[in-house]
Amino acid sequence: MNQEIIKKLSLKNDAKIIMVVIDGLGGIPGKDGKTELETAQTPNIDQLAKKSICGLSYPLSISITPGSGPAHLALFGYDPFKYEIGRGLLEALGVDFSLESGDLAARGNFATINEEGSITDRRAGRISTENNAKICKLLQGITIKEIKVIVSPIKEHRFLIVFRGTGLIDKISESDPQKVGLPALEVRSLDPKADYTAEIVNRFVEIAKERLKEAYPANMVLLRGFASNIKLPTMQEIYKLNPCAIATYPMYKGIARLVGMEAIESGETLEDQIKVLRENYQNYDFFYLHIKKTDSYGEDGNFDKKVAVIEEFDSLLPKILNIEPEVIVVTGDHSTPSMLLGHSWHSVPTLIYSKYVRCDQVNKFSENSCISGGLGKFKALEIMPLALANALKLAKFGA
Amino acid sequence: MNQEIIKKLSLKNDAKIIMVVIDGLGGIPGKDGKTELETAQTPNIDQLAKKSICGLSYPLSISITPGSGPAHLALFGYDPFKYEIGRGLLEALGVDFSLESGDLAARGNFATINEEGSITDRRAGRISTENNAKICKLLQGITIKEIKVIVSPIKEHRFLIVFRGTGLIDKISESDPQKVGLPALEVRSLDPKADYTAEIVNRFVEIAKERLKEAYPANMVLLRGFASNIKLPTMQEIYKLNPCAIATYPMYKGIARLVGMEAIESGETLEDQIKVLRENYQNYDFFYLHIKKTDSYGEDGNFDKKVAVIEEFDSLLPKILNIEPEVIVVTGDHSTPSMLLGHSWHSVPTLIYSKYVRCDQVNKFSENSCISGGLGKFKALEIMPLALANALKLAKFGA
Repeated sequence: MNQEIIKKLSLKNDAKIIMVVIDGLGGIPGKDGKTELETAQTPNIDQLAKKSICGLSYPLSISITPGSGPAHLALFGYDPFKYEIGRGLLEALGVDFSLESGDLAARGNFATINEEGSITDRRAGRISTENNAKICKLLQGITIKEIKVIVSPIKEHRFLIVFRGTGLIDKISESDPQKVGLPALEVRSLDPKADYTAEIVNRFVEIAKERLKEAYPANMVLLRGFASNIKLPTMQEIYKLNPCAIATYPMYKGIARLVGMEAIESGETLEDQIKVLRENYQNYDFFYLHIKKTDSYGEDGNFDKKVAVIEEFDSLLPKILNIEPEVIVVTGDHSTPSMLLGHSWHSVPTLIYSKYVRCDQVNKFSENSCISGGLGKFKALEIMPLALANALKLAKFGA
Repeated sequence: MNQEIIKKLSLKNDAKIIMVVIDGLGGIPGKDGKTELETAQTPNIDQLAKKSICGLSYPLSISITPGSGPAHLALFGYDPFKYEIGRGLLEALGVDFSLESGDLAARGNFATINEEGSITDRRAGRISTENNAKICKLLQGITIKEIKVIVSPIKEHRFLIVFRGTGLIDKISESDPQKVGLPALEVRSLDPKADYTAEIVNRFVEIAKERLKEAYPANMVLLRGFASNIKLPTMQEIYKLNPCAIATYPMYKGIARLVGMEAIESGETLEDQIKVLRENYQNYDFFYLHIKKTDSYGEDGNFDKKVAVIEEFDSLLPKILNIEPEVIVVTGDHSTPSMLLGHSWHSVPTLIYSKYVRCDQVNKFSENSCISGGLGKFKALEIMPLALANALKLAKFGA
């Protein structure tokens, strides 16, 4: 549903919504013909499914494998095709970097060049993270015209670079040629308005090359994924909610902050997270609870451990249920089938519980049983409006 | 489906379509775990469902609770987000007022103000409808510049006001501050093109205040819900149909007229309505039969009476079936669960019968059984094109 219409209809009331996002929840059948979720013993989720309306949600659309950014935007009700989160921005979110309005972020690699300036290693021999931090210090304090440049280490040869100041636009080409044997590319402006930005970035690369002369093998920088910080309308503005995120990984906190959530200190384990949820229950009316490890094990191809994380959540679910929130959503941001070792396009089992839900006949929470759920197959973008409707937070459209 | 395409494909033939709209049909489970429709004994509808294709229709979209206006527009195949029917227009339709092109309608309240001009009662002590009619006479015959003002009593303190003439635009603010202790607001133009309209309306309010000086407690008017009369393409133009409405409540007749239907005299009871349908069967090829009381009882929270109205319709259904129309649609404009005492966002059981329908396995007409219907979950906006297709009134698209 169009977010502008939702904004006009949204109402403030005391009802609370808990959205549990089990990252990479969906699977495809493994050797026993069952997915991870179908293999897991989940008596508590199944019990909740019985009192809920279920269905299969498409993260973005029926055929598209989403990244974490767009998948989460959709879950929060933001059209992921309208609001694109560039790679540089995601890197910044991922290291909990506090971006300011107008910032231009990019992903950087330390690389090795030879005397002719040709790249011999795009990753500078995968230098250690400690080494990376030391080399980043060599690039501190650079200001070009009015633009401040901030370089912040990530893992191994990777760093985040942020250009801060006015007049920066992300319509520029990348400096990383993605191949060895070539020199780093000059950054080109892809839009007349971005000429100034290209000039600044190219000047930075020159300075960096100079300063890194003695830092072999990390004697060059390659930049890509330029992305301007985007300003999204907040969940407060659109939904009149007071939302918080209970996530343990920085990137998810970052995406949540992008839509106006407060990312509260959430501990490390799922048990910690649920404790934090209970302790903060009076302070917010929307809770995004993010469970990461299902996705991590899916990406590792570890079927059994993904099953175990789902079972761990199931065992802790009663601690959420007994605070009696008005609305509970259990879903995933996308599927991460262990067999595929990565995100996939498959639909995601989803349930919505409220007192006002028209429950269906689904009494097991799984890919297969959700096929016959009352929600059918639907877009993840609709989950947030549905949660609001079930919390009686949406007024009638028209008279 | 896009109405422009439907218009290009629509064909005239002799087939007849009966669309039965059971207002507020859908429900949510009550204390016995069943909805009103699931509780009702409906052998005749169930028998029809067996020979039909069934599904669950979303009145506007999966999460939105519709008003009666947009919900009916969607059923008649008009995009409810494209054509908005303002409150004033609905009031006019509701009292069977014959609007002309260019008219600006609004809802009015008689109110009480004190000597300082502050509102002390927004409803003038809910004066009687008789009194209202008398006071409306005090406001007769007002013409401002070229604009004629028509004031027509509704119930108690409510009236309809229509400004008739050229150059009126509904982009103006309301005069009703929705609070006591404040004076009536001056109407402001929300668009430069509406400056003239605002001027006329404000002048009217001045005149009315003067004329009502001695009419305490109804010594002031408050105006809201300004709406220009919209001109919709008719069902004749788009579908090449000759449609009629068999409805007992003025508002539904009004909406039907808005799309070009003839609203024929329909008696008072459902039995009357079906008699009228049979008597007029040769004169039209599309029949909109509106059953109101399911919604009324839903809004009253009267589960059992809503069940009884559904059962009454079921008992009369054979009188529709035995005239053997080519296509029968049974649906609702939205859900009105007794538990919610009002319209809701829930999907609506819908069946389409024709000789050419691909029937599914649904053999009971209910929310739960329609989940597995051949139409799945779909938008109410598609019902009208589906009815036309089943009447063989839509040509092939492309060669």
